[in-house]
Amino acid sequence: MGTTQLEAAPEPKYWHLKTVLSEALDSEFAVGEILPNERDLAARFGVARATLRQALEQLELEGRLQRRRGVGTTVAPPRVGVAVASTDQDWPGASGDAWQAVDCVPDVPPAAVADMLETAPGETVHVLRRTRVSHGQPVAAELLYVPSTSVPDLTAIDAPSGAARARAVLRELQRFGLDGQDRAVELGSARADDAKELDRLPGAPVLVVTTRYLSGGVTAAVSMATYRADTCRLTFGDSAGVEIHHAPHTQAS
Amino acid sequence: MGTTQLEAAPEPKYWHLKTVLSEALDSEFAVGEILPNERDLAARFGVARATLRQALEQLELEGRLQRRRGVGTTVAPPRVGVAVASTDQDWPGASGDAWQAVDCVPDVPPAAVADMLETAPGETVHVLRRTRVSHGQPVAAELLYVPSTSVPDLTAIDAPSGAARARAVLRELQRFGLDGQDRAVELGSARADDAKELDRLPGAPVLVVTTRYLSGGVTAAVSMATYRADTCRLTFGDSAGVEIHHAPHTQAS
Repeated sequence: MGTTQLEAAPEPKYWHLKTVLSEALDSEFAVGEILPNERDLAARFGVARATLRQALEQLELEGRLQRRRGVGTTVAPPRVGVAVASTDQDWPGASGDAWQAVDCVPDVPPAAVADMLETAPGETVHVLRRTRVSHGQPVAAELLYVPSTSVPDLTAIDAPSGAARARAVLRELQRFGLDGQDRAVELGSARADDAKELDRLPGAPVLVVTTRYLSGGVTAAVSMATYRADTCRLTFGDSAGVEIHHAPHTQAS
Repeated sequence: MGTTQLEAAPEPKYWHLKTVLSEALDSEFAVGEILPNERDLAARFGVARATLRQALEQLELEGRLQRRRGVGTTVAPPRVGVAVASTDQDWPGASGDAWQAVDCVPDVPPAAVADMLETAPGETVHVLRRTRVSHGQPVAAELLYVPSTSVPDLTAIDAPSGAARARAVLRELQRFGLDGQDRAVELGSARADDAKELDRLPGAPVLVVTTRYLSGGVTAAVSMATYRADTCRLTFGDSAGVEIHHAPHTQAS
């Protein structure tokens, strides 16, 4: 990487630096390679360390860099496309589901979820924890909220706890017809428990996907899934055979 | 807001502080209200300013706070649900489209877009700029890439430039059958031009939605839309009448 002076740039300095760095990543660095330290990088580009840090933060947001404590800053592999929805709509736990059931406990859902489920204040529901692995990496953690009215024939004897209990809840849920589902995607920050499962620090940016499963005119279940925003691109396809192959590295025009 | 000591917290301090602050926002502050300054807040909660700043950053990621230069930190309104897709699939510019055409210029697309469109290196395509306003606020900016092979009957005479040219391109595009579309959502940072349109600083977190329009076995057009991540929740519904009403403020368990 040569020395580049950025004095004359019309954009904010860190922004121009980001573009220059992004090009250098494409041409001079391999995926997984550790970047020189901040002092050296700042010196090479003739910028203050604060400017350099802003540019590195941008590149991290765009999935180009990963910063890990104790390792340093490395060049990130391209984001992995993770299918969130196809036109085939099905209950969670149906065959072909990418999620693994981990646990099931009775708990009071957060207020926003209780509103969607129209449960009474303080009413407990089945809370299933599931995880999703893609290309050998944990990519998402889910909490699936199922009110007891959605699984009326579930007995405590079936499977009292753990993953077996979660599977029993999913089996009961599938006995009803699924009318449809709605999804919302938004930016969030990883809760401590999710962060641990996703191998991130608490507070790392995540994409939160809220799915509402509709049956018999009511919301039968609500899923809150947390995807790693650094490594995932969520895909919504309507033809299984078609995939968007290239992660647009967003703003590297 | 009372004084709360956080010494005994088992989680990272800023994380616990975030939860406490989040509850205070719900119970003691109105939307739009300006928060006390950092020094006062840090003193009230008995934390260092660095800890406070981390917590404020988390709340900003989650859409609870807005930080604006010259104004300070204000309590954000709930995120607005913006419909990105329904089961009714249509070409961009079809009736009911939420986007406004602004401009159309010939330009070479970014490499990732050229790959999807299978255009030759250096080949120019029609680049349409469109914007989307929701509830009176600009929520998204789009670049729509249309290769000339997708609009073979477009003449230069029709409308040589600007929004009229963009509309002529969209009209021609709609003459072909749409086989389907694929979408991907990922985290990005706002380019300078998008940031200006969205009333944000360059580099602000955005949700980037890439849509590929398929026709006659090829990708006929590619849209790269940049949504404000602070104010938007992207919705994907399969029944027009159903909406997810409550923005889960993600991690405020």
